[in-house]
Amino acid sequence: METKAQVLYDFAAEPGNNELSIREGETITITNQNIGGGWIEAKNSKGEVGLVPEDYIEINQAQPFTSGGNAAPLDLSFFDSHMPTPASTAQVDVAQPETPVTPVTPGFSSTSPDETSNGNDPWTVFDNNASGGFSNNWAAQPEGTETGKTSSNAWHSGGHGHPQAYQGPGAEDDEWDEEWDDVKSSGGYAESEAGEGGAINRGGAHGSSMKIALNKFPGFSKSGPELYLLSKQPAKGTKLPVYSGEVGPVWAYPDYQLDCVVADPKKGSKLYGLKSYIEYQVTPTTTNKPVNHRYKHFDWLYERLLEKFGSAIPIPCLPDKQVAGRFEDEFIKMRMERLQGWMTRMCRHPVISSSEVFQLFLSYKDEKDWKMGKRKAEKDETVGVMVFSTIEPEGLPDLDLIEVEQKCEQFNRFTRAMDDGVKDLLTIGNEHWKRCTGPLPKEYQRIGKAFQNLSSVFTSSGYEGEAALTDALTAAGKTYEEIAQMVAEQPKKDLHFLMETNNEYKGLLGCFPDTVGVHKAAIEKVKEADKLVAAGKITPSDKTTMSKRASTMSYSLQAEMNHFHSNRIYDYNRVMQQYLEQQVKFYEMIAEKLRHAHSRFTTM
Amino acid sequence: METKAQVLYDFAAEPGNNELSIREGETITITNQNIGGGWIEAKNSKGEVGLVPEDYIEINQAQPFTSGGNAAPLDLSFFDSHMPTPASTAQVDVAQPETPVTPVTPGFSSTSPDETSNGNDPWTVFDNNASGGFSNNWAAQPEGTETGKTSSNAWHSGGHGHPQAYQGPGAEDDEWDEEWDDVKSSGGYAESEAGEGGAINRGGAHGSSMKIALNKFPGFSKSGPELYLLSKQPAKGTKLPVYSGEVGPVWAYPDYQLDCVVADPKKGSKLYGLKSYIEYQVTPTTTNKPVNHRYKHFDWLYERLLEKFGSAIPIPCLPDKQVAGRFEDEFIKMRMERLQGWMTRMCRHPVISSSEVFQLFLSYKDEKDWKMGKRKAEKDETVGVMVFSTIEPEGLPDLDLIEVEQKCEQFNRFTRAMDDGVKDLLTIGNEHWKRCTGPLPKEYQRIGKAFQNLSSVFTSSGYEGEAALTDALTAAGKTYEEIAQMVAEQPKKDLHFLMETNNEYKGLLGCFPDTVGVHKAAIEKVKEADKLVAAGKITPSDKTTMSKRASTMSYSLQAEMNHFHSNRIYDYNRVMQQYLEQQVKFYEMIAEKLRHAHSRFTTM
Repeated sequence: METKAQVLYDFAAEPGNNELSIREGETITITNQNIGGGWIEAKNSKGEVGLVPEDYIEINQAQPFTSGGNAAPLDLSFFDSHMPTPASTAQVDVAQPETPVTPVTPGFSSTSPDETSNGNDPWTVFDNNASGGFSNNWAAQPEGTETGKTSSNAWHSGGHGHPQAYQGPGAEDDEWDEEWDDVKSSGGYAESEAGEGGAINRGGAHGSSMKIALNKFPGFSKSGPELYLLSKQPAKGTKLPVYSGEVGPVWAYPDYQLDCVVADPKKGSKLYGLKSYIEYQVTPTTTNKPVNHRYKHFDWLYERLLEKFGSAIPIPCLPDKQVAGRFEDEFIKMRMERLQGWMTRMCRHPVISSSEVFQLFLSYKDEKDWKMGKRKAEKDETVGVMVFSTIEPEGLPDLDLIEVEQKCEQFNRFTRAMDDGVKDLLTIGNEHWKRCTGPLPKEYQRIGKAFQNLSSVFTSSGYEGEAALTDALTAAGKTYEEIAQMVAEQPKKDLHFLMETNNEYKGLLGCFPDTVGVHKAAIEKVKEADKLVAAGKITPSDKTTMSKRASTMSYSLQAEMNHFHSNRIYDYNRVMQQYLEQQVKFYEMIAEKLRHAHSRFTTM
Repeated sequence: METKAQVLYDFAAEPGNNELSIREGETITITNQNIGGGWIEAKNSKGEVGLVPEDYIEINQAQPFTSGGNAAPLDLSFFDSHMPTPASTAQVDVAQPETPVTPVTPGFSSTSPDETSNGNDPWTVFDNNASGGFSNNWAAQPEGTETGKTSSNAWHSGGHGHPQAYQGPGAEDDEWDEEWDDVKSSGGYAESEAGEGGAINRGGAHGSSMKIALNKFPGFSKSGPELYLLSKQPAKGTKLPVYSGEVGPVWAYPDYQLDCVVADPKKGSKLYGLKSYIEYQVTPTTTNKPVNHRYKHFDWLYERLLEKFGSAIPIPCLPDKQVAGRFEDEFIKMRMERLQGWMTRMCRHPVISSSEVFQLFLSYKDEKDWKMGKRKAEKDETVGVMVFSTIEPEGLPDLDLIEVEQKCEQFNRFTRAMDDGVKDLLTIGNEHWKRCTGPLPKEYQRIGKAFQNLSSVFTSSGYEGEAALTDALTAAGKTYEEIAQMVAEQPKKDLHFLMETNNEYKGLLGCFPDTVGVHKAAIEKVKEADKLVAAGKITPSDKTTMSKRASTMSYSLQAEMNHFHSNRIYDYNRVMQQYLEQQVKFYEMIAEKLRHAHSRFTTM
């Protein structure tokens, strides 16, 4: 029997890559489902055969690789039903007063309206409801059949509505071969989803919030901070101290700041040359030993960092994925630049840069070592809110709940205001970009042409003594044509970096509603503690622990905010300097060119 | 019986000037027809009474001050019927072989389709038909009842479709009191009739061709060059020699070049304060004695120059007339600037500047002297093509007809090409003006605001050590706001002069089809000479005279073209220098401002 499939999204085939272009709504015939790597072979109505990304299509019959589905969400919480559902794959001991927390069964998706109706503005959600602003657009994509099995791309469904290729069973054996590189995005300088002639989508900002993956199963989108607040387990993993610094609570900064260089993108191939990919060379300044990583390796790192630190530290998204044009030089260069930006930001973070998983990414010794490290990272139990259990405020007094709440509110207000400011600047910058690369140089060119045209008319006069003027006029015309080109090229020299920096910050700021949301939820939990004590659900000692842990969370947030502030001041100082320096050069060069053009006219 | 009138054009009353605003299509009642000065008193349907310009309305009954009308045109020519009709009020002896030239009867308007279908492009007309490109939009406005009576504004119906105020009988007694100032135009920086977001109408160019007034009666729009070619009369008036110069035939240039300063506009009033007007002070550099003139005095001068020299020398139109806003400072300043430009151009012309009528205008001794001079000028018989009778090529060999024709064609090609080039530059300049004063500064302002906004967000962070960045960011923001203002104001400092110069040239070039047309018509006449000799209509000696005179006309045209070229080279050199100098200053100032803004950021 022929297997038919419905095309869900447009997919443009990469030339010379055995792919097949398909259009949304089209019906195709599956010719080989066993290609692997997220690809299947299909035939279109014209009889053309080629590879298409598995999750760009919907197969019309029961699919062997999906299971589970829309089972009713499990209420695991003894708190208010609108509170996030605690869940974890790690055997964390959660206080189980009366309603026991059922061990998580993967394949259940949490689709209650309460949890999916987060709306578009993450900031608003946080305001309206203390349950935090986790987005879970992947909730409708049930996945995974084996309990405890990690599907490393399960968290990665994009904010752009295009899922990445499905990673089928058996992927573990060929774990780096999935085509994660291949999710389409608007990329480049296209309009962002913000529309309204607005900000361009410049990566580091795909989707406006990170997805805090608090457990490893996609069936549950949220994990409440009570997991940590009431945890009886001793903290596992490296301690993360918070010190009292000049500006307030700060992370422990290393003496030597790590950095790395992302460079030298190279095309590789696999599946016996059937599929191609791009590998980037990542060289840490510490070892100076280059390691090669594909986009999806970065993505794996991102997932690990999000899982492990996302509740405490905003982990900015990676630059957008893209299918079409992903082998074009311009795109590769842009992605590399953005991966560099992302890596630099990660390197600068004292907690992230010193983490085992990050170090693993930067130091590839051999395949065996790497695979071991990879599996270890995936089995890390101190993830989600449990990261707070490793945070240790050193010499800092416990904060009362009012202080905790005030700090949290302050950070929320600030990040929200900055988010608005950054988006505003991006919108204006984008308009300016369009003007500088579009109508403005065209106009200078037309002015230049008009001068040259007048010059050639003058030349035709037959009048003697015309040459000095016509030469000068032609030169002036050419000068304006040169200016036209300078104007058109200038944004790449200055505005580009201003835009990239602001885009990075847009991405980073988009993570804050989630990060702050975890804290806000914790505060709400602590506020309920009295009631829970009264109801006998927790002990007075539990309540004290909760309060102390909320204080620890606040110190963590404060340290993170101070890190954010100092980086922000550094980044904006640097980018503004760079911008203005280039602007000065630009205007000086125009003045110089015009001065020369002026000198060619006869002095009278 | 009540006299009703239909309003033909919108007229906006000048506040405090006893005027009444009227709208096209409105019916008004005439309350006093004897106001004079081109004004009548009328009442609108609301009962409001005020003065309206006489020719903005059409009185519903027979008007006492109009006569004549659409009588059939008189064929006065013994040449082909499509040739211009010779006519003159001066008693010039024209060869009258068989068909006698009937003395001109004023009040007849020449409205034959051949003569009115000149279309919009004066250049095309010249190409298609040797009858010249005279426009005669005033042909439908019969005027004047007394033979030989001069109505000095008869030639002045504008190219903008708004007639000027009618000058009724008895005007001679109060000859300076007509409100010629008062014809509406688009003025200022409004869109020109060219439409298409195109060139702005910047005066010196109202209508694209001058109206060569070859006789003093409006009933006849044209006078053929045969009037001169076959004239038996000895030349009257000052001789105008043409010499052989370095660049070819040239006018006799004076040792000292006349110039004058138009300044100090003052508001005056008349009709016992009922009407106001603006007087400009004109000070010639020769006498340094200021004389005062109203716009209509300039207009009178223009008419005289056009009448006297228009066949040989393109006389550019005056800056546009205007009714609404004519007492606004901006308008007065602009008109003054343009009158200055016009006067400077007239002063620079050796023939015009040394003419009696021009000298009269610059030297007002007393009222009596002035009136005498004025009447003398109006009675000048050496007008129209007869001006060629005063031109004397000195030491220049007679040109044959082929040479004459080649020169004429060459000038026509050049002026047409330059006309295109100038219009092109004006269109582009106008678009640039709009961009520089509209969207561009708005964008810089928004960039400035975005920086300042981000700065104030940063200030709210509560983070220590923020001040250096926020101060610098605010300063950068303010710098961009200053740049916005500079950008918006810059066109007035540079583009303005480039536009004004090109507009002047547009006006001047618009006169060439008429000027060249006279020559072209003369060439055609000479070509017909053989036939006329054969037919016995002229003698062989007449033919020789015609040919010699065509040669004289050609020398005149060549001298004029050489004058035009040398002025053009001077003007474009000067305006380009000025433009580029200001542009250099502009970009240097921006660079300097940005350099300062840059220095405020912390060096890292």
